[in-house]
Amino acid sequence: METQYKLTYFNGRGLAEPIRLLFAYAKVEYEDVRIEKPQWPSMKPTTPFGKLPILEFDGKKVGQSVAICRYLGKKWNLTGKDDWDSLQCDVLVDTLGDLKQQVGQYRMEQDPAIKEEKKQNLIKETIPFYLQKLEQIVKENDDYLVGGQLTWADFQYAASLENFELIFGKEALDQYPHLKALKERVFELPGIKEWVAKRPVTEF
Amino acid sequence: METQYKLTYFNGRGLAEPIRLLFAYAKVEYEDVRIEKPQWPSMKPTTPFGKLPILEFDGKKVGQSVAICRYLGKKWNLTGKDDWDSLQCDVLVDTLGDLKQQVGQYRMEQDPAIKEEKKQNLIKETIPFYLQKLEQIVKENDDYLVGGQLTWADFQYAASLENFELIFGKEALDQYPHLKALKERVFELPGIKEWVAKRPVTEF
Repeated sequence: METQYKLTYFNGRGLAEPIRLLFAYAKVEYEDVRIEKPQWPSMKPTTPFGKLPILEFDGKKVGQSVAICRYLGKKWNLTGKDDWDSLQCDVLVDTLGDLKQQVGQYRMEQDPAIKEEKKQNLIKETIPFYLQKLEQIVKENDDYLVGGQLTWADFQYAASLENFELIFGKEALDQYPHLKALKERVFELPGIKEWVAKRPVTEF
Repeated sequence: METQYKLTYFNGRGLAEPIRLLFAYAKVEYEDVRIEKPQWPSMKPTTPFGKLPILEFDGKKVGQSVAICRYLGKKWNLTGKDDWDSLQCDVLVDTLGDLKQQVGQYRMEQDPAIKEEKKQNLIKETIPFYLQKLEQIVKENDDYLVGGQLTWADFQYAASLENFELIFGKEALDQYPHLKALKERVFELPGIKEWVAKRPVTEF
């Protein structure tokens, strides 16, 4: 019997979207459960560590979106050609995680003055620092992140770059044509193009 | 020719120690470079993303400590018996990362009142929430994290649990005998016991 997958998350792209992109690309069926905020307090204790997304399959519940993507990526031959490529996927996804953590700290900041300071620091230093290095890597890998071929890391980046343009403006990637090309090529992939056309429209 | 490894980090355990524990356990030689703070500004631009640790081998420089540990763990058969175990290693290491991030936010907090509030929240809610769940997992896996056998995830946890006792007190793990047993068994492993006896003494 084929494995039955059930993905549970809030009604947003967020941490679940890279998983959904992988399912769409692999053309594997799954149940895309989206809970509303009022349902969360009663569901929270039933999750492995009080967080979403969770993926259920083979009678088990698994959290941690990046770990889930790595697992599905391995299953669907999206970890590159060898252990070195697989390491590069992990390194680049954790590097994206570092950058997202800093963007998250800005977005969560309550004090308007500190928030503005964090925004300026991000725009003038942190983001250019990361994106220039990433742009070079993607340029050297034929508009992919690792080994000149599609990997699960590209799905993580495509989902984040989409949000990046929403937060910092549609022109925010203009200086990074290879990152922009990476994002666009992922969203044009068969399976993903159809998913994006039909997925629920949410802010993030 | 055997691979030559060079690990560069500050003179502390920190993010490098799980890597050092892996080398010690595998009994693989490496250069353990520890830089002093004044050396960092000139070295920073030579690292992949402005961070330490980095591991150099085969003429390449790699950052991201967790990714490095996963790679070495795979090389030295420390990822469990199958892809499911490997997924569990990843999930539990990222879960530890979530908890460490919250402890880090408390430790970095400058405002004494907010710092105390964060500490109380950690001690009364966050830490018991995580450690009770982890204790149960370790109990079910014969005092290992995954599949009743040693994996690279155990090295990550052992290093963090050592710091946890330093931050919150030697008795902080008394309620979690299986986590304590996990930590102790890792530090008693051949290779690691010798490393701990001879490693440079640093605060963290």
